[in-house]
Amino acid sequence: MYKIISIAFFILFIINIGFSQNDTKVPLPRPAQITWQNAELAVVFHYDLHVFDGKKYQQSNNWITPIPDYNIFNPVNLNTDQWVKAAKDAGARVAIFTASHETGFSLYQSDVNPYCLKAVKWQDGKGDIVRDFVASCRKYGVLPGLYIGIRFNSFFGVNSHKVNGGGEFAENRQKYYNKMVEGMVQELFSRYGDLSVVWFDGGASGPDEGGPDILPIFEKYQPGCLFYNNTQRSDMRWGGSESGTVPYPCWGNFPFYSLTASDSIKRALPENNFALLKTGNSNGQYYMPAFSDAPLRSYNGHHDWFWNPHSEDGILPLPNLVEMYYNSVGHNSTLILGLTPDATGLMPEADVKRLQEFGKEIERRFDQPVASTSGSGNRITLKLEHKQKINQLVLMEQIEQGELVRKCNIEGKTTKGWQSIFEGSSIGHKFIHRFEEIDVSAVRLNILESKGEPQILDFSVYQVGNK
Amino acid sequence: MYKIISIAFFILFIINIGFSQNDTKVPLPRPAQITWQNAELAVVFHYDLHVFDGKKYQQSNNWITPIPDYNIFNPVNLNTDQWVKAAKDAGARVAIFTASHETGFSLYQSDVNPYCLKAVKWQDGKGDIVRDFVASCRKYGVLPGLYIGIRFNSFFGVNSHKVNGGGEFAENRQKYYNKMVEGMVQELFSRYGDLSVVWFDGGASGPDEGGPDILPIFEKYQPGCLFYNNTQRSDMRWGGSESGTVPYPCWGNFPFYSLTASDSIKRALPENNFALLKTGNSNGQYYMPAFSDAPLRSYNGHHDWFWNPHSEDGILPLPNLVEMYYNSVGHNSTLILGLTPDATGLMPEADVKRLQEFGKEIERRFDQPVASTSGSGNRITLKLEHKQKINQLVLMEQIEQGELVRKCNIEGKTTKGWQSIFEGSSIGHKFIHRFEEIDVSAVRLNILESKGEPQILDFSVYQVGNK
Repeated sequence: MYKIISIAFFILFIINIGFSQNDTKVPLPRPAQITWQNAELAVVFHYDLHVFDGKKYQQSNNWITPIPDYNIFNPVNLNTDQWVKAAKDAGARVAIFTASHETGFSLYQSDVNPYCLKAVKWQDGKGDIVRDFVASCRKYGVLPGLYIGIRFNSFFGVNSHKVNGGGEFAENRQKYYNKMVEGMVQELFSRYGDLSVVWFDGGASGPDEGGPDILPIFEKYQPGCLFYNNTQRSDMRWGGSESGTVPYPCWGNFPFYSLTASDSIKRALPENNFALLKTGNSNGQYYMPAFSDAPLRSYNGHHDWFWNPHSEDGILPLPNLVEMYYNSVGHNSTLILGLTPDATGLMPEADVKRLQEFGKEIERRFDQPVASTSGSGNRITLKLEHKQKINQLVLMEQIEQGELVRKCNIEGKTTKGWQSIFEGSSIGHKFIHRFEEIDVSAVRLNILESKGEPQILDFSVYQVGNK
Repeated sequence: MYKIISIAFFILFIINIGFSQNDTKVPLPRPAQITWQNAELAVVFHYDLHVFDGKKYQQSNNWITPIPDYNIFNPVNLNTDQWVKAAKDAGARVAIFTASHETGFSLYQSDVNPYCLKAVKWQDGKGDIVRDFVASCRKYGVLPGLYIGIRFNSFFGVNSHKVNGGGEFAENRQKYYNKMVEGMVQELFSRYGDLSVVWFDGGASGPDEGGPDILPIFEKYQPGCLFYNNTQRSDMRWGGSESGTVPYPCWGNFPFYSLTASDSIKRALPENNFALLKTGNSNGQYYMPAFSDAPLRSYNGHHDWFWNPHSEDGILPLPNLVEMYYNSVGHNSTLILGLTPDATGLMPEADVKRLQEFGKEIERRFDQPVASTSGSGNRITLKLEHKQKINQLVLMEQIEQGELVRKCNIEGKTTKGWQSIFEGSSIGHKFIHRFEEIDVSAVRLNILESKGEPQILDFSVYQVGNK
């Protein structure tokens, strides 16, 4: 009798395993991840002491060399409204600001890091750019996020999370630094209202690695925010390059719960040249969509996260920005454009103008579909009112239920019958495809393989003309 | 012919050497050294973050452990008038304040060290205790001096002048720290008017040792101030203990121009248990008088440079303070009493009371000599108006011309003729001697050996009764 029950349970167990891993069970996004993917375009404003030194920013040198005089920080015309308005004009729904970057200098009124805006003469030591920035975001309806740089601190002497030095002194200063970081995080999480994303660049070293214990503070003060990232958790992943693009397919699913936690992750990532970050994995047990980041000034050999004098030739031409958009947003990835205000405290006019052009061009390309539909099931057909030329389509899955589609194709009904437009795999939050103009009376999406019944939130076709 | 000239020059050379080293040529004090020795009693106020942590101060741990939360600094009742008044009541003519001590925290509005009063909530980040302290000194006619602690900085990671760590990062941070120190020194030397003494505890590591270049800044902004000390120069020397005393004799002359510069000094000092610091050397080529330092709270096993809670039992009893005075001021050495305001920002009442008692007792003992004289030559006789009992004498050389007396004695004219009161050597700025009461009608000073004609500024005798 006992044996029979055991066998029955064993069978149930096998069935359950099979069902959960290979059938309909897929990782579900957190609300913050949905918000983040819906944003599609975000910007990150980089600002730090060295913007004011008149020299070209050199990151590797900056890591190990304190800025000689922090009172060079003097953005006399600072206007975060102008920054956020520029981002809004580009179509960004999220704006992120470097509350601190790699110098260790905090751009707010910290009570735990003296190397902050309290130290400078600017605004009589009362300046708080995080405060100003968040207020501007609220004003323009853009979701604020913060970048908190703790991996490097050239002033305090921290390199890749580790306090430089040895012996008991370095151990004590490491403990102090960890507490300082926890204090900064608490300040930034508790003082400025709800944040949409917090970005620990290079990850926050967790307590298991001798680093600060950040996640509990995050969970206490910003439970609805997107957490990126430490050894315990990551709600999004870097897309594996700073080109502002990811390849297709770029799955939202990922086989690890963090980017740096285990030895297997560490082995997996370098071995494949970040390929796993770029593509994700359709069977990954964790929902962790990729973002695509690049500075707006990444043309002509530039890659300027920070403003450098006389570098307007680095601003990406509009066509390049548009290509970037197709290869990021169109590949299920949020595009993060790096913007950098100049030493006067304003986004330079040339950058502002390009962002406006970019916003208008994306609007022109996507705001007037020829036809749209939505629905569920394995085939969704979109009939056009009359036969017409199209050259672009957009697909969106209802990702609240996870990323279900694994294989699909799209066909167009021509005078010669159904013709293939695309043979694909991933849809995810959004898939955009451009193709040779084709004259059709209908298009249809065939879902050839999925985990459960797919829900298509949007299926639109466009005819996008050259300007 | 050439040979004869050579011999003549050689003879002249020998004569010159003999004259300058062994005859009347003695090192002369700078004006700042004269002011300093005339002060006789100085105080040093120690104040730093750890006064506020409620724990017992442990220096060696403090060196390598940053204070967890600098916002504990909150002296709500701070009143530097009350501090300086207490020092004045004790008879101090110089008061020194720790603008920074070993935490690295600067107690003023620094523009080069963010770890300063700008960082704290106290006085809304606008507090400047150096400013307040100097103003109080001017108000009470006490000469202000500053102690600038740069040898340790537990926050920035500096131990014995060296930035903890290795490689290019540590080298860069060392350069930065040196510049920070030079900047602090420039701020402190240029913002608060004339200072009477600047005290780099443990010495300022000079540029030859990879440290900051402080002396030129000092010479530019505070040429009339007493400089203590770096590898290039020292205008006074530590008296070799923290007992508040030096032995007799304690010469103002010293064989080295700095305390730490050369290998020979470094060898000489440890080898003789600081004996050379304690005694000096009558033939030393450099004028560098000794000071005697001790905290007021150095009784009952205490040695509290910094205020600790529940430590009033550490306050020296009046008789001990008086003994200390005789063995410091009375031995040609300036006494520096360490005072430490408490966490409310005031000198504790018990300390204030003891300082008042001390000032009154010194006044009682020295303000009413039985007779006084001054003069030059090898014998100075002081006739009393009538025969009377004396038990104390004071001698002072006119040290503007250097310390000339090498051997002397004092005799008293009794009914049995001249009787020896003391067989001595050094006088220097001041020599005080107590002796068994003797009934005399005159006393005389016989200078048995000197470098040139001695000038005696004061020769006084007293009858000091018990209270």
